[in-house]
Amino acid sequence: MAPQYAPSLRSRLAPLLIILQAAFIIIYVFFDKVIIDKQKDKDTFSNFYAEFQDVNVIVIVGFGFLSTFLVRYGFSGSGFNLLVAVVATQWAVILKGFKSWYDGGEFTLSLRSLVDAEMCAASALISIGGVLGKTNAVQLVVISLLEVSGFVLNTWILETLVKVHSLTAIMMLHVFGAFFGLMLTWVLFRKGSEQQFEKETYDRKTGLFSMLGAVFLWMFWPSFNSVLVDSPKRKLEVVCGTYLALAASVVTAAAVSVLSSPKGKLNLIHIQSCILAGGVAVGVASSAVHQPWEAMTIGFTAAVVSTIGVQYIKNHMLLAFQCHDTSGVLSAHGFPGLLGWLAHLLLQIKDCEDHTIAIRFAVFHICTLLITITMSLSMGIITGVLSKWSFWRMPQDNKCFDDQAYWEFHHVSLHK
Amino acid sequence: MAPQYAPSLRSRLAPLLIILQAAFIIIYVFFDKVIIDKQKDKDTFSNFYAEFQDVNVIVIVGFGFLSTFLVRYGFSGSGFNLLVAVVATQWAVILKGFKSWYDGGEFTLSLRSLVDAEMCAASALISIGGVLGKTNAVQLVVISLLEVSGFVLNTWILETLVKVHSLTAIMMLHVFGAFFGLMLTWVLFRKGSEQQFEKETYDRKTGLFSMLGAVFLWMFWPSFNSVLVDSPKRKLEVVCGTYLALAASVVTAAAVSVLSSPKGKLNLIHIQSCILAGGVAVGVASSAVHQPWEAMTIGFTAAVVSTIGVQYIKNHMLLAFQCHDTSGVLSAHGFPGLLGWLAHLLLQIKDCEDHTIAIRFAVFHICTLLITITMSLSMGIITGVLSKWSFWRMPQDNKCFDDQAYWEFHHVSLHK
Amino acid sequence: MAPQYAPSLRSRLAPLLIILQAAFIIIYVFFDKVIIDKQKDKDTFSNFYAEFQDVNVIVIVGFGFLSTFLVRYGFSGSGFNLLVAVVATQWAVILKGFKSWYDGGEFTLSLRSLVDAEMCAASALISIGGVLGKTNAVQLVVISLLEVSGFVLNTWILETLVKVHSLTAIMMLHVFGAFFGLMLTWVLFRKGSEQQFEKETYDRKTGLFSMLGAVFLWMFWPSFNSVLVDSPKRKLEVVCGTYLALAASVVTAAAVSVLSSPKGKLNLIHIQSCILAGGVAVGVASSAVHQPWEAMTIGFTAAVVSTIGVQYIKNHMLLAFQCHDTSGVLSAHGFPGLLGWLAHLLLQIKDCEDHTIAIRFAVFHICTLLITITMSLSMGIITGVLSKWSFWRMPQDNKCFDDQAYWEFHHVSLHK
Repeated sequence: MAPQYAPSLRSRLAPLLIILQAAFIIIYVFFDKVIIDKQKDKDTFSNFYAEFQDVNVIVIVGFGFLSTFLVRYGFSGSGFNLLVAVVATQWAVILKGFKSWYDGGEFTLSLRSLVDAEMCAASALISIGGVLGKTNAVQLVVISLLEVSGFVLNTWILETLVKVHSLTAIMMLHVFGAFFGLMLTWVLFRKGSEQQFEKETYDRKTGLFSMLGAVFLWMFWPSFNSVLVDSPKRKLEVVCGTYLALAASVVTAAAVSVLSSPKGKLNLIHIQSCILAGGVAVGVASSAVHQPWEAMTIGFTAAVVSTIGVQYIKNHMLLAFQCHDTSGVLSAHGFPGLLGWLAHLLLQIKDCEDHTIAIRFAVFHICTLLITITMSLSMGIITGVLSKWSFWRMPQDNKCFDDQAYWEFHHVSLHK
Repeated sequence: MAPQYAPSLRSRLAPLLIILQAAFIIIYVFFDKVIIDKQKDKDTFSNFYAEFQDVNVIVIVGFGFLSTFLVRYGFSGSGFNLLVAVVATQWAVILKGFKSWYDGGEFTLSLRSLVDAEMCAASALISIGGVLGKTNAVQLVVISLLEVSGFVLNTWILETLVKVHSLTAIMMLHVFGAFFGLMLTWVLFRKGSEQQFEKETYDRKTGLFSMLGAVFLWMFWPSFNSVLVDSPKRKLEVVCGTYLALAASVVTAAAVSVLSSPKGKLNLIHIQSCILAGGVAVGVASSAVHQPWEAMTIGFTAAVVSTIGVQYIKNHMLLAFQCHDTSGVLSAHGFPGLLGWLAHLLLQIKDCEDHTIAIRFAVFHICTLLITITMSLSMGIITGVLSKWSFWRMPQDNKCFDDQAYWEFHHVSLHK
Repeated sequence: MAPQYAPSLRSRLAPLLIILQAAFIIIYVFFDKVIIDKQKDKDTFSNFYAEFQDVNVIVIVGFGFLSTFLVRYGFSGSGFNLLVAVVATQWAVILKGFKSWYDGGEFTLSLRSLVDAEMCAASALISIGGVLGKTNAVQLVVISLLEVSGFVLNTWILETLVKVHSLTAIMMLHVFGAFFGLMLTWVLFRKGSEQQFEKETYDRKTGLFSMLGAVFLWMFWPSFNSVLVDSPKRKLEVVCGTYLALAASVVTAAAVSVLSSPKGKLNLIHIQSCILAGGVAVGVASSAVHQPWEAMTIGFTAAVVSTIGVQYIKNHMLLAFQCHDTSGVLSAHGFPGLLGWLAHLLLQIKDCEDHTIAIRFAVFHICTLLITITMSLSMGIITGVLSKWSFWRMPQDNKCFDDQAYWEFHHVSLHK
């Protein structure tokens, strides 16, 4: 008979977090003189700060509340998201600092490096969406450290070896995060947890909390795509394009959701991730999208692909490949990311007058994708195998999708 | 006996949305060269962007969560709001683009036209607040298209024929939206849905979701009123004036709510719309308000009028005129809008030294109101009659105010 | 036998609020010419406005939703917070206006004075966190007026007599608010309300609402600490430092919460205030913190102190001193504030080369603290005694922590 209580995290989580945080502090002590100011004038700071906050809202409120939909897992959904986000961001800031120290001899810290780091954290949050409810906080912290390291390594490879533009490289975060998460959930799959899938549902209130996260993601997604663009003219194009693509996604996701439902009803949780598909795809393709109709067509197609994915392919993945992708990250970020990559390729080729340049670009672009997918799949499998280690005290099957394993509740509130 | 299930929306909603979205895309394809950049320098973009996002938050989170208060209608409240907002915004952007193409030969798109369009969407969202819970998504999309067309037409008439300043014309959105919504709910009134008014209640949790929407509206209302003001000095005056008017409204609404309740208690849902009354009224009067005390007096009066309206007049409207105004848009936007209009008139006359100018202004100002009310009443009746058409599959009386007619629920969560 | 119903607020709250609001308006009428524009150029307005809105979000959404955690007190938690915030802000704006009129002959109003006033309101909101659920709206309004007056007086004494920098003086708001609230809850303590502490719990949904407030506070805390800093270079340092300190707090709070729980579980409500401890401490010490490791160490220590305080000291305060501190303001703001003060002292001394300057600074710094604590304790006791007056119709013991005493509910929703 399985033990009645979930294993206590005290002897694992507390030492891990304290050692980790102490290590982060010591690294900064070691790099005696951290240069904070990279921004030269007042304008740059002020203009950038509002967009930094938008990205912050996406990472903390957006992803955090999007994962509160599970009816008994809201505290973990939002709480662990915050924990993973700050661990991943701190780690990514340090990795970026190392890079700048290696390149120029100085360990720098700026608003831009914080934004960069939050984007790496976003890719980790996408990954852990796939294993939502099936892992404990210790595993999530370990996974996020490895994911961020893998993603930063991938960005570095793309920028250094393939000479990809840094914006294009960082926007592969959706594809990297989704495939990494998929591998994780495949490696960590356990037959026994299936009977617990009955807890994998939402009610009237958790659906609204999750909707709140979704609309915050939706509203600030234009900032997410445009924050790292330098030219103000391009920035405006990216903002308008992303807004229109997101709008097209909402309309299309509602239409396809009604079409594909047997009773002709909408599914709130499906729609929540599909309304973002256009933003994801346009973000990946952003450097090649110039006209509104291009952005809107991408948004339309991305929403169709994403809604069909979440409606049909998610179940197939579970039955055929034993990939149980709780938040549907493959459909929400994987497919739209691939579509954005394809759109980027097609638009770039369309604009080329010379065939040889077009072919050269295509080869280079395909390499980018192959490297990213290879990296994410292999890192995902390695991370999955590592985090399966019994040392981390994985929750028992019947404690999955349940806050009670990790959070204190008063007795009276248990009946609610 | 009425059918047990609500009519499926599949054959209506899906084609409507797909055709609509495809049409929007084709229009952009047709206008081959859409000029995105109207902003000249970097500063303009950066400064404007934060305010654009504030308006975005008002339209998506503010209006969306304000209408989640109905205990069984939260998914529809927030979900349909998002759908209507993006349809209305896209349509308004296109109408504005047509206008700029007609005026100058170019179809332009800029952050400013997005903000303009979101304001038109806000007027549509105000209107549908009146029929919240009594219409399906198909009807809402049709209503929003007609409402936005009517409102843009009204703005065009005011600007072209009466030579009203564009800011004053667009701020009539509250009056237009409220009276349009009132006519809608009058035409769509059905005796049978009355017994369902027992579902027209809130509980401890939906009250808080709705409160969340209300405070987001409250916080960013200064941006809503100031975003289209050009002069930075005036902008500051509008921001400070709106903030103080909103603050006065909160205090006054609480006082009047306690006074008018038989048990001396506060009503959360009533207060939620009344705390905004000051912002609405000051917005309409904004070009004539210069001193803090003027703004605060307007805020005070607006909250008194609005709270009394929601407490007493709402019921009278139902009994006497068969107008069942679910969200109380008449009190929340109609009366404060009229009050703002009156305050504008009085302040402008007070500032005039010459009698003839004062009379001329009064005539011109009264015309503005009469045109707006005539347009909104007539468009509201036409839209109501059109959306009553059985082709749209209006929900049966006993399916009103209930998410289950449109949204998928798991069985376990039905009992909650 | 105690009366069955809570005393009606009608004859107390309504006149108080109406007289107060009328007085606020009359003050502005009296100061005929209020100068709104203090900002000289467009840039200043635009840059400052986004940060003003961040502080607004902290005060309204952050503090408001943080205090919705009590299972039957959500409407009051968020509603009374809004009411107190606007009363306190309006009153603080007027006090600042008096000061500017006294200093320079002009009653000025600007975005900066609004931000200043919101910070005073924040100190009032911290104080009322200590008596959350045990006082009615009338008492809260009276308390907030006295608290703000006391805090503005304290700031004025510090700036004028001790020549403290205005930023350091205003950042004492955490210490002032916490000790003021502690005295309040001590004076207002009633034996009988203890049996009602069973209502002092949270459930799955109110925990999430409260989490929402907490993350909004967490995200915008860098703006709270940096908004009044003038130099853009320093601003960037404060933003980065606050962000890193907050991140360190999240990790540390989770670790200490798990360590100190008997079952090795996390406590969501404890964590919510402890993740902010780093931001509070760094804010108080901000003018002396230059390096990331300093900020992170402060964040780490503050979270340890705060988590231990909320876990152990809160109960001791209740048993030993009859201080029943509902929201744990002593641990959330008091201890981190003191720690920040200490860090400021140590860092400043470390940077001094000359012993006499170091000693002089220490004396001056200790005076600042002693004055603030003396002021807050004495004002807190006076306010407590005044607000204990039966005229204010304090809720009976068995009506504490319950919305039903103040808010209208429909019958059906009572069972929920």
